[in-house]
Amino acid sequence: MIDLARGSRELALAERVRRFVREEVIPYETDPRVERHGPNDDLRREMQAKARAAGLLAPQVSMEFGGHGLNHRETATVFRAVGYSLLGPTALNCMAPDEGNMHLLEKAATPAQKDRYLRPLAAGEIRSAFFMTEPDGGAGSDPSMLATTAARDGDGWVLNGRKWLITGADGAGFGLVMARTEGGATLFLVPLPHPGVRTERVLDTIDRTMSGGHGVMALDNVRVTEADILGGLDQGFRYAQIRLAPARLTHCMRWWGAASRAHDIACDYARTRKAFGKTLIEHEGVGFMLAENEIDLKQAELMIDWCAYVLDQGDAGVAESSMAKVAVSEGLFRIADRCVQVLGGMGVTDDTPVHQIFRDLRAFRIYDGPTEVHRWSLANRIRKRPQTFE
Amino acid sequence: MIDLARGSRELALAERVRRFVREEVIPYETDPRVERHGPNDDLRREMQAKARAAGLLAPQVSMEFGGHGLNHRETATVFRAVGYSLLGPTALNCMAPDEGNMHLLEKAATPAQKDRYLRPLAAGEIRSAFFMTEPDGGAGSDPSMLATTAARDGDGWVLNGRKWLITGADGAGFGLVMARTEGGATLFLVPLPHPGVRTERVLDTIDRTMSGGHGVMALDNVRVTEADILGGLDQGFRYAQIRLAPARLTHCMRWWGAASRAHDIACDYARTRKAFGKTLIEHEGVGFMLAENEIDLKQAELMIDWCAYVLDQGDAGVAESSMAKVAVSEGLFRIADRCVQVLGGMGVTDDTPVHQIFRDLRAFRIYDGPTEVHRWSLANRIRKRPQTFE
Amino acid sequence: MIDLARGSRELALAERVRRFVREEVIPYETDPRVERHGPNDDLRREMQAKARAAGLLAPQVSMEFGGHGLNHRETATVFRAVGYSLLGPTALNCMAPDEGNMHLLEKAATPAQKDRYLRPLAAGEIRSAFFMTEPDGGAGSDPSMLATTAARDGDGWVLNGRKWLITGADGAGFGLVMARTEGGATLFLVPLPHPGVRTERVLDTIDRTMSGGHGVMALDNVRVTEADILGGLDQGFRYAQIRLAPARLTHCMRWWGAASRAHDIACDYARTRKAFGKTLIEHEGVGFMLAENEIDLKQAELMIDWCAYVLDQGDAGVAESSMAKVAVSEGLFRIADRCVQVLGGMGVTDDTPVHQIFRDLRAFRIYDGPTEVHRWSLANRIRKRPQTFE
Amino acid sequence: MIDLARGSRELALAERVRRFVREEVIPYETDPRVERHGPNDDLRREMQAKARAAGLLAPQVSMEFGGHGLNHRETATVFRAVGYSLLGPTALNCMAPDEGNMHLLEKAATPAQKDRYLRPLAAGEIRSAFFMTEPDGGAGSDPSMLATTAARDGDGWVLNGRKWLITGADGAGFGLVMARTEGGATLFLVPLPHPGVRTERVLDTIDRTMSGGHGVMALDNVRVTEADILGGLDQGFRYAQIRLAPARLTHCMRWWGAASRAHDIACDYARTRKAFGKTLIEHEGVGFMLAENEIDLKQAELMIDWCAYVLDQGDAGVAESSMAKVAVSEGLFRIADRCVQVLGGMGVTDDTPVHQIFRDLRAFRIYDGPTEVHRWSLANRIRKRPQTFE
Repeated sequence: MIDLARGSRELALAERVRRFVREEVIPYETDPRVERHGPNDDLRREMQAKARAAGLLAPQVSMEFGGHGLNHRETATVFRAVGYSLLGPTALNCMAPDEGNMHLLEKAATPAQKDRYLRPLAAGEIRSAFFMTEPDGGAGSDPSMLATTAARDGDGWVLNGRKWLITGADGAGFGLVMARTEGGATLFLVPLPHPGVRTERVLDTIDRTMSGGHGVMALDNVRVTEADILGGLDQGFRYAQIRLAPARLTHCMRWWGAASRAHDIACDYARTRKAFGKTLIEHEGVGFMLAENEIDLKQAELMIDWCAYVLDQGDAGVAESSMAKVAVSEGLFRIADRCVQVLGGMGVTDDTPVHQIFRDLRAFRIYDGPTEVHRWSLANRIRKRPQTFE
Repeated sequence: MIDLARGSRELALAERVRRFVREEVIPYETDPRVERHGPNDDLRREMQAKARAAGLLAPQVSMEFGGHGLNHRETATVFRAVGYSLLGPTALNCMAPDEGNMHLLEKAATPAQKDRYLRPLAAGEIRSAFFMTEPDGGAGSDPSMLATTAARDGDGWVLNGRKWLITGADGAGFGLVMARTEGGATLFLVPLPHPGVRTERVLDTIDRTMSGGHGVMALDNVRVTEADILGGLDQGFRYAQIRLAPARLTHCMRWWGAASRAHDIACDYARTRKAFGKTLIEHEGVGFMLAENEIDLKQAELMIDWCAYVLDQGDAGVAESSMAKVAVSEGLFRIADRCVQVLGGMGVTDDTPVHQIFRDLRAFRIYDGPTEVHRWSLANRIRKRPQTFE
Repeated sequence: MIDLARGSRELALAERVRRFVREEVIPYETDPRVERHGPNDDLRREMQAKARAAGLLAPQVSMEFGGHGLNHRETATVFRAVGYSLLGPTALNCMAPDEGNMHLLEKAATPAQKDRYLRPLAAGEIRSAFFMTEPDGGAGSDPSMLATTAARDGDGWVLNGRKWLITGADGAGFGLVMARTEGGATLFLVPLPHPGVRTERVLDTIDRTMSGGHGVMALDNVRVTEADILGGLDQGFRYAQIRLAPARLTHCMRWWGAASRAHDIACDYARTRKAFGKTLIEHEGVGFMLAENEIDLKQAELMIDWCAYVLDQGDAGVAESSMAKVAVSEGLFRIADRCVQVLGGMGVTDDTPVHQIFRDLRAFRIYDGPTEVHRWSLANRIRKRPQTFE
Repeated sequence: MIDLARGSRELALAERVRRFVREEVIPYETDPRVERHGPNDDLRREMQAKARAAGLLAPQVSMEFGGHGLNHRETATVFRAVGYSLLGPTALNCMAPDEGNMHLLEKAATPAQKDRYLRPLAAGEIRSAFFMTEPDGGAGSDPSMLATTAARDGDGWVLNGRKWLITGADGAGFGLVMARTEGGATLFLVPLPHPGVRTERVLDTIDRTMSGGHGVMALDNVRVTEADILGGLDQGFRYAQIRLAPARLTHCMRWWGAASRAHDIACDYARTRKAFGKTLIEHEGVGFMLAENEIDLKQAELMIDWCAYVLDQGDAGVAESSMAKVAVSEGLFRIADRCVQVLGGMGVTDDTPVHQIFRDLRAFRIYDGPTEVHRWSLANRIRKRPQTFE
């Protein structure tokens, strides 16, 4: 039987999160420590201390590492509440890339690796980064173009290459580095700061919510050993898959919250601001946009829940998360775009968070695979299916 | 806990329906008895006899009346399979307006009314019609403009008025007539044919799947009595509400099936037809359209399931069915439109059912309330909500 | 200097056409001789007799053949007025494929061919067809897949093959047949009826405005000679190019007129029909759609004028007509779709011509190259351009 | 006759501008003097000195004030070239609001006002501002809500009120202030800086190309006299109309140039960047977006030229400029959005100007009247038209 009800545990937790975000996190949104690339580490620590005190830090991780051990569907309910402020995911320590890295480490790390990296990460003591994408000519939407190398050197490897758009790398406590090895690609854990890992620069980007921003990173003869391999030699892409679908989906969850915030602000504005003799919302031109927002929010919520359900069944969810990512990122962007429009002149200023939500959601249509790459991969699946009618 | 699994009963039934539609119904699609306004009654009876033999007739109604007693969510699963052929709903006796009328009669009719009208309707012995919409100046999207009158006359009433776009009225065994009474509006059951009820003409419309077509009907001094009232005097709109949301939603379910059929045909074509040195689906321009179709199908399915779940909780589901109706009708139309485009010249011919599915889905965006009316009513709800932030 | 004024000659002619269409042609729209595939030849002749009497028959052809010798830009002004009724182009003898064939014959035919084919065609004595597209596996969007053959046989050729979606072939006085010859492809003039040319069937299609409908044609050992070649041996594709861009563009012109008609009807309806206490047009949800229509109409008009200007400069206008065809067909379809929606239930019936205009415009997005093929060819041009910045 | 050719004078001037922008202006785009709110005055003066030397400063104004005396159509050709860099309009002194103010002063100012304000403005010695929009509750899309007052005081008036989103006000040499007078609204010229005019703050906005940014301004007992009135007492809205349509349209022209730049950058990228074994542009998913860009660019260009033509005929062009503004702003935004998408990760960084162009174009859909306000006013015009058919 189809049961769409939510469990009481997740509902109670989401309610606590909702209150926490509204009372504790939203006031920080105008804090000057939200810098050009996102909240700085001082602000991050201050917010996380409050979340820790409230028992809400990294709610998704297992209890062993301080969380609530949520499954994907429960995570969806909770993260939508977290995302209501763009600072929420940082405050609750469930922002990308850390949240995805925690997930991967829980699944694939050795006990020693968990102790060294996962424990402090889940506790908010350090941040982390995932060194995957590379500058022009290297790995991007097409990971097979991976150019960073891990060359055998005695009992270890030496990493060399350049990485690009590496979220949170600047200031991170460790990095997960994807590099080409003889038999494929391998993920290496590299503690940071490291003499061989240099931030060339931090990119100025349209979003402003990820601590450390997006760095261009140079890897210069970085020595690693067998113990630094995550998962297995030459198994990098396979292990990246573990992270892939869930990380895509948590982006959907968090940004759903942000879009719902923009919508609430636009509704509030439309109910009070007047033009041509009536409130904006009494103008169908505005009211219809808000109605469409509610439909898009609902559709996005359902796509997230459905994909989370698939992941909870143990499925890798590659196609499902592609479908969800396209539908949700495009849908949430439409919402944010309409909210800007409803707010009029106010919408293009920083006087409300809508402007920044709009910018973040523009980036979301590209992060974790642009819409077009997902369509391409979905089309490939259709191509390989048998005919329905002869 | 969110549980998106489907029950084994509905899955088994849907599978039987799927096979029945494919083996027994689809072959009738090119039967000449599919006339200008839809399948004629001879064809309808022939198909329904097969469905009866297969135990699949009117599967949604309660067992007492020969069905399987499905709840809304189970109905969704089954009707999506029924709709795979545009003739499926007629063959299985779950097409509009009969299906909605059965639902309403089950909820609101007296035992005598059930015996007289519901029993033969569920058995496929007769068809029915819902006399609601009126010509220009009368009830349409705005039911408050109802112009048909029921004037007190002794112990009964006399109905007078004109109705327009009355699906299935021509050839129906009875009609449910909405008419203005002193204290509001009332629904009357009128046996057909009736000397006072005349088909002025049957409209030529873009769709072609409803037996009897859409009639312009004249009501000329039609006498009715207390026993002919459905539900209660002056309670017409209240009882129409019972029918409203479920009927909207079953439209979504059936046409979902039709859109999925169009998509299957387009995929088959794209996998085999070649242009510019490769199959169509290898062209991203085509493949992306098919990928978008799958996303739209999934979103529509989820919206249907969600709204059905709400109805199963006993909620009237007015807002939810408005949201579902807009999202699903617009989404399915996009799918059909893309399928036509993928098929190219073939797509605008009757050589595949896609052409007719496209046409039906164009009408769906208007039937049961045009998209704009639903947006308007959703906007009204937003207008009345309290502010989120002061 | 940019001068967007129109000449007085074309304006006067367009005004005469406008009046003629409104007074003489529109009344025929409900004539039963508009059959399933379009106006039959009896109706066509009756309407053309009136146009001839009014001095408006085939206004685009040179004076030598009875027209007004309009250039492309003048043709645009006049044809937009012609298209105001879907029967207008037939009535004025400037419908596809005849109009394109006249254009091609004027440019490429020998004096003898002109006398035999162009003269009676321009006079409305006969119709014609262009035998280009083929069933699956043959020429469609990709003309290089041409499968019909012209095999050398003595001093002539023997044509064999099957053609598909051949507009007006059934009942035509001659056909222009594209067939594969040793050194390429060649266009042959074939008088019809002809014992070797058989109408397998006339397709049922979504449109209903082209006399003769769209036929599936079998060519069975059709003997032709040197004198039947149009243009030159192996030069078929080159000569088809002469027809290509102008024929695409006249489609845009004619259907622009149809869309403007739908818009006028929708505006009339919205100004008078009431719902929820005011006229439809006072509802922004409706008014905005009509405002968008006007913008789309203006954009389509400008694209047509611009492309016509390019053709008048002697340019082949291949890219320009691709751009115009995509923009105009997609834009006009949006207009027709909105008009259906504004009309609500009325919009999906044959009670107004909007329903049929909507259907014709759906086909237009596929005829003369689906949108996707034009995008593909435009993308190819961009690909070959030099870089702007190094 | 429709003549779409451009004059040699405008073509030659546009070519000079194109070269100037490419060689002299684009290099400044990464100059640190492009600050948070746009180019600072130091950078502005440096660029304008170069434009002056090249004879390209304020090309649109009459020769008397140092320009080339272009009509609207010529201005369109030239400004599209100017806008190729977001700094171009500032460098050539034809950016909003100065350019619109110059236009208005040329039409409406007294000789003394021209000498005092227009001459130094056209020469780039000062900047200016148009004090129209007000905070919540005041004039915005609906100018009738004007709250700033000009109270009679002896032989003059005293201005009081708050203005909001006043572009360039901070640092301007004078302002045009709209205030409510007894018989309507009046425009006053106020020299700046002025003790009664205070910049409360400069808003942080999504755009970054207007010197001085967008200010929140307080007017506190600002005394003005008869000589400070522009046009006439109580004639403020009438004179604002003079500025309205042309200013809207020059926005379209300049931002057209910006969109064309984004498109060139995206094309360059797509022709070289590889993914999945071929260049991006060989992927139809990318190539189609670029093809759509070219169509949208052409449509926008034609709408601009058409509206400019209307203005050149002496028409106020209110409806035409509404149509153009909607079509062009929405079209150019789609282009910028696609360019961001084509560039992928690169597109959301400041490494190319595309990111900033995207942001500016988002604002454009709101500046000078949001799309919805224009649709509303166009719908009103349709409402008032007579019926086409009775």
